[in-house]
Amino acid sequence: MTYCCALRLKDGLVFISDTRTNAGVDHISVFRKLYIFGIEGKRFFTIQTSGNLATTQAVIGYLKNQLTLNQEPNLYSVNTMFEVAELVGHTLRKVIADVTADTLEQSNYYCSLLVGGQIGEEPMQLYNIYPQGNFISATKDTPFFQIGESKYGKPILDRALSYDMPIDEALRCALISFDSTLRSNVSVGMPLDVLVYKKDSLNLPEGKRINESDEYFEKISKQWSETLKKGLQDLPKPTHDYFD
Amino acid sequence: MTYCCALRLKDGLVFISDTRTNAGVDHISVFRKLYIFGIEGKRFFTIQTSGNLATTQAVIGYLKNQLTLNQEPNLYSVNTMFEVAELVGHTLRKVIADVTADTLEQSNYYCSLLVGGQIGEEPMQLYNIYPQGNFISATKDTPFFQIGESKYGKPILDRALSYDMPIDEALRCALISFDSTLRSNVSVGMPLDVLVYKKDSLNLPEGKRINESDEYFEKISKQWSETLKKGLQDLPKPTHDYFD
Repeated sequence: MTYCCALRLKDGLVFISDTRTNAGVDHISVFRKLYIFGIEGKRFFTIQTSGNLATTQAVIGYLKNQLTLNQEPNLYSVNTMFEVAELVGHTLRKVIADVTADTLEQSNYYCSLLVGGQIGEEPMQLYNIYPQGNFISATKDTPFFQIGESKYGKPILDRALSYDMPIDEALRCALISFDSTLRSNVSVGMPLDVLVYKKDSLNLPEGKRINESDEYFEKISKQWSETLKKGLQDLPKPTHDYFD
Repeated sequence: MTYCCALRLKDGLVFISDTRTNAGVDHISVFRKLYIFGIEGKRFFTIQTSGNLATTQAVIGYLKNQLTLNQEPNLYSVNTMFEVAELVGHTLRKVIADVTADTLEQSNYYCSLLVGGQIGEEPMQLYNIYPQGNFISATKDTPFFQIGESKYGKPILDRALSYDMPIDEALRCALISFDSTLRSNVSVGMPLDVLVYKKDSLNLPEGKRINESDEYFEKISKQWSETLKKGLQDLPKPTHDYFD
């Protein structure tokens, strides 16, 4: 499986992806699932992928090939983030249609994508693209999307994340969401790819790779365990009628 | 869906079940999924159910019918908790075999069960019974089982629960696991049924039903939100390389 999460906040965008792929528990590999595109000073966006690895690599492959051969439309010729999402969605639909031309088992080849970024003076956008190629965009009410193994890490986002939060606090929230998922499900695994984009910067951040020996991640993971244990102990004791 | 959770601790057993059933989002009902059996001073156990409602009600129906008609073996005639689990497992397998005699679509009729309790001087036991009627038992290493919509509430149990924990603290941990699930998934819903059994008491606790207006649950839910938000703020700030 996979876990990818993306946040669209007042002050910027945060993207985190794991790197574990598996075809059975005895066939585990590391593949990057966070791809960065852009032109310094003009446009920046990432694509995060979850699902069939051949499908996701084909989608990225087609999109990069269009850029290499300068075929239009491509990721650097379209005008808006909406058109980026459309192009990615069309590409995904085409890849799935090609591979399933002779079969009805489309869902084996499904993948989901998150696309977030900014073009010129347009506001930042974040899209969740479905296997059918259609998509929804993040809002102030729902400032995050998850794809893949999303349930373990959803409660902390539901509870603590808000659109107006400072980026660094939201980043910690998303990292804890990953830490919870890593601990509860072995199909999501280190290293993690993290990328923070600051609103209107139009730069191309490199992002950071978190390995198992990452000191900061280890520190917040340990502190979070203590926070939860202490938090539970500090809750008021159950009333008597729980024990009748 | 459903969420049921059961803990087997050094000092006792804790059982919590939600009560929401749904056949589509426009067909939601309240059904109890935690059943209590026993003979005061001699044996006590609960059965928690998740999955096809007709299957789970048939299983409980057969088990009660055996008691009413005094057919052996029955839940009060078998000698050990292992035999209780076997009887429940056989009954489940029979119910599914009956309803699927003319179809290959067995999985539509699946359900999972948790059976926990104590008979006489035997140690307390907790079993997770699969749709095929076979089962596994909880251990010191893995002192809890979940059935149904289990992922949202698993991180807090993985992180904070241990076999040696005092019952009241483990109960708070399990209640928080439910609170997280209730917030993140509308297919799990109030009221909750909670039951605590103290080791070697061999009494038949009534258990408690938690409604939406329950003061204690509301209090710990609110305090937990504050714990998480404060805990996030107290984590050390991300290092600079996250923002490059």
